[in-house]
Amino acid sequence: VQVSEIGEFGLIKLLTQEFGIAYPPARGTPAPEGLEVGIGDDAVVTSKREGALIWTTDTMVEGNHFTPESTSWRDVGWKALAVNLSDIAAMGGVPHLALVTLTLPPDFETDDALELYRGLHDAANAFDVTLGGGDIVRSPVFSITVALSGWALEAGGPAALLCRDAAKPGDVVAVTGQLGAAAGGVRLIVQGPDFDAPGHPESESLLCGAQHRPQPRVALGQAAVRAGLRCGMDVSDGLIQDLGHIASASGVALHIEAARVPVSNDLRVVFPGDALAMALTGGEDYELILVGPEDVMDNYIGETEKQVTVIGRAEDGEANVTVVDEYGKAMTFERRGWDHLAET
Amino acid sequence: VQVSEIGEFGLIKLLTQEFGIAYPPARGTPAPEGLEVGIGDDAVVTSKREGALIWTTDTMVEGNHFTPESTSWRDVGWKALAVNLSDIAAMGGVPHLALVTLTLPPDFETDDALELYRGLHDAANAFDVTLGGGDIVRSPVFSITVALSGWALEAGGPAALLCRDAAKPGDVVAVTGQLGAAAGGVRLIVQGPDFDAPGHPESESLLCGAQHRPQPRVALGQAAVRAGLRCGMDVSDGLIQDLGHIASASGVALHIEAARVPVSNDLRVVFPGDALAMALTGGEDYELILVGPEDVMDNYIGETEKQVTVIGRAEDGEANVTVVDEYGKAMTFERRGWDHLAET
Repeated sequence: VQVSEIGEFGLIKLLTQEFGIAYPPARGTPAPEGLEVGIGDDAVVTSKREGALIWTTDTMVEGNHFTPESTSWRDVGWKALAVNLSDIAAMGGVPHLALVTLTLPPDFETDDALELYRGLHDAANAFDVTLGGGDIVRSPVFSITVALSGWALEAGGPAALLCRDAAKPGDVVAVTGQLGAAAGGVRLIVQGPDFDAPGHPESESLLCGAQHRPQPRVALGQAAVRAGLRCGMDVSDGLIQDLGHIASASGVALHIEAARVPVSNDLRVVFPGDALAMALTGGEDYELILVGPEDVMDNYIGETEKQVTVIGRAEDGEANVTVVDEYGKAMTFERRGWDHLAET
Repeated sequence: VQVSEIGEFGLIKLLTQEFGIAYPPARGTPAPEGLEVGIGDDAVVTSKREGALIWTTDTMVEGNHFTPESTSWRDVGWKALAVNLSDIAAMGGVPHLALVTLTLPPDFETDDALELYRGLHDAANAFDVTLGGGDIVRSPVFSITVALSGWALEAGGPAALLCRDAAKPGDVVAVTGQLGAAAGGVRLIVQGPDFDAPGHPESESLLCGAQHRPQPRVALGQAAVRAGLRCGMDVSDGLIQDLGHIASASGVALHIEAARVPVSNDLRVVFPGDALAMALTGGEDYELILVGPEDVMDNYIGETEKQVTVIGRAEDGEANVTVVDEYGKAMTFERRGWDHLAET
């Protein structure tokens, strides 16, 4: 069944039924937990809260961010919420409520819409997010836009956040997890595996999984704030390019040692020659960059059971990023990351 | 200059410069008023607040909701925010922060992007909304998605809101302003003026203006809550269809007298034969429907200096909407309003 056959209200009814929500709401139906007014009114209303609010939004467009041939609709739903969760994680916040906007071609299949929503619910359940409705409109191109809010943790007063402008000379620079797996996944999806080389089906599958189902570092972001860290961001466009944002916002030079960068083990197996460059410049890892005093970072790393690796240091000097190899020689790369509008 | 030539970061820089915002933010630059963290970090953070939050989102897609041939980019920007403001108005809330997502074709002109943002700022300034960044991505089709939050007024305790499920038998039904002007504007824009009929340039211009620059009823919505009204919504898809949502959510029959419906004066001048039907079923007026006890409504209407008109009554009975003519005879219409996905 195509969405144009059942119409906007029919589609909303189908999607809400699947997840046990009464739509349109009948008189006296209680709103879902945490909401004063649920889906079906002019707007959704969340219960009374207090604090500093965090807001972010991110969009995925078919043919640009993914193709249905290589990504399941359920994974598209997961990723659409996950990339927004990563932005809340990158502020050290607690995610709260998501609004979902779909632009759908008239021949979009309702089964695919259901799968998409299952993926959204997977991520919402995994990270305790309330899905609060949104908008569905007709368009020649499929896109999904999620707007996500969260709350800042408080350290006994003002909002405690991970910002890009809080790096200071002498701070150490660290990253969570391993880098490059998502870039490896893209390369496998776009080019296919290298048929001249021996296959590594397990590693290849993990790389594609990293691309399709990124795991936002929500808990590690909050733990960083609790540990006293105040500078960080997520790795979405490529490590070097993203570090450049911290360097320019904070007015510090960032000195990175390539040998210390945690490169994905699976990436090393599948693309041994290019793994380091892919880890440094490939996007969509959704790990966190964290910057702070060495003692604070050491405590944090201990608490996280070494899920975090120090890769360099912030120094006085011109705001830029230098990457050196194991001999201390500056490395250069063809590109530093992604720009979403420039011709590639 | 096309956006692909200056890239995502170049475009953000251009847009922020135009409105006096430092981007990327330099260390120590204070965030704009009301924000802890402004544009240029992973997310925007609003200062600490307390209350019940209202959230809504609405999208406009080129070729579906407007065409650049007939609507200026500045008006597109205004309307994209205004339709969301209307949803906050329809809950009786106070608008707060907007996130803006653009999907842009690579050949989109930066001058058009600037005009679009001028329109967004026009509406943000008129209704005291903070523009808090968003996302810009590449797509074959232009679209603009606004996610808008607001705060509920409080009547000394729980959130005080205008909901669709709060109409009771015996209540009167009222609407703000006049209806049908926006539908008249669409008809002029799509079909052009009727060259056989005498022209009415001033009225025609006002109808097109109603379509291009809708005025959300933010103050009237808040005044309704303060006056004690608790049921309402905005007229976005067509009066009869929208009344149907209140009837089904509240479980009441709504009885409307066509002769009492305030039809746009300009619409009567330009399309005398169809004015009533267009006022009853045309969408995008962004006036408010309000339902409540007669005495409460009377007080409210007095306070608003008669910007509000009673058009009917809620009764016990099957949840539906009946419209009667001046002789009490039930009227029927070819269509009741808009569905955004169904084939038309």
